[in-house]
Amino acid sequence: MLGRLNHVALAVPDLAAAVRIYRDTLGADVSEPQRLPEHGVSVVFVRLPNTKVELLEPLGPSSPIAAFLERSPAGGMHHMCYEVADIRAARDRLTSAGARVLGDGEPKTGAHGRPVLFLHPKDFAGTLIELEEV
Amino acid sequence: MLGRLNHVALAVPDLAAAVRIYRDTLGADVSEPQRLPEHGVSVVFVRLPNTKVELLEPLGPSSPIAAFLERSPAGGMHHMCYEVADIRAARDRLTSAGARVLGDGEPKTGAHGRPVLFLHPKDFAGTLIELEEV
Repeated sequence: MLGRLNHVALAVPDLAAAVRIYRDTLGADVSEPQRLPEHGVSVVFVRLPNTKVELLEPLGPSSPIAAFLERSPAGGMHHMCYEVADIRAARDRLTSAGARVLGDGEPKTGAHGRPVLFLHPKDFAGTLIELEEV
Repeated sequence: MLGRLNHVALAVPDLAAAVRIYRDTLGADVSEPQRLPEHGVSVVFVRLPNTKVELLEPLGPSSPIAAFLERSPAGGMHHMCYEVADIRAARDRLTSAGARVLGDGEPKTGAHGRPVLFLHPKDFAGTLIELEEV
């Protein structure tokens, strides 16, 4: 069921500082920052040859990564996003196995304009997993 | 400087349970477990089309992931490993930029039999980064 690793998302408290780390110190190919108010984050894409890393800075008081950064003020690894061919079929398989999907279980439009779901970390060995239909 | 994302490592308290989650619930292609006593872990590889995820369970009392699991008993995202062409050149670039490499700065032989270094999370926005020469 799991396809490609679409991205790994890192929550960072200071996007400009994180860009300097990934672009200048690590010498990676880094996008311009994008504000995504409907998702509560500003994002920079670190483009690797085989996948990408997303650097996420909170945007607005209800940002979904605000609580994470309160617990880990220096930032850290936030979630992993895997591609699936059929997100509703994936959801049905997971919930049949007793695993929990966050929210109401209906896919939402993610930051890339595609349907996404998030899975409960407690049912996935402590890792927050996003599924994206591609 | 950064090449491919070689793997993302997840620390898990119970490798057999994590295998059931990734193989059975998520339907991923999962390797047999391997004991790596010299690295203090047992590992399972989750093979994705473009990269891999490594599930790490502590092996022995001095396991490098034991402290992580004390803080996060359910498990979680432990580190990201990027490929570099020349690990000593990478180290010199990073230390010249003021970033810290863990240990004595000399590459060690990693779990894949190749030279690796770990970078200090405090200098990389809270993420533990491994570099592997390929």
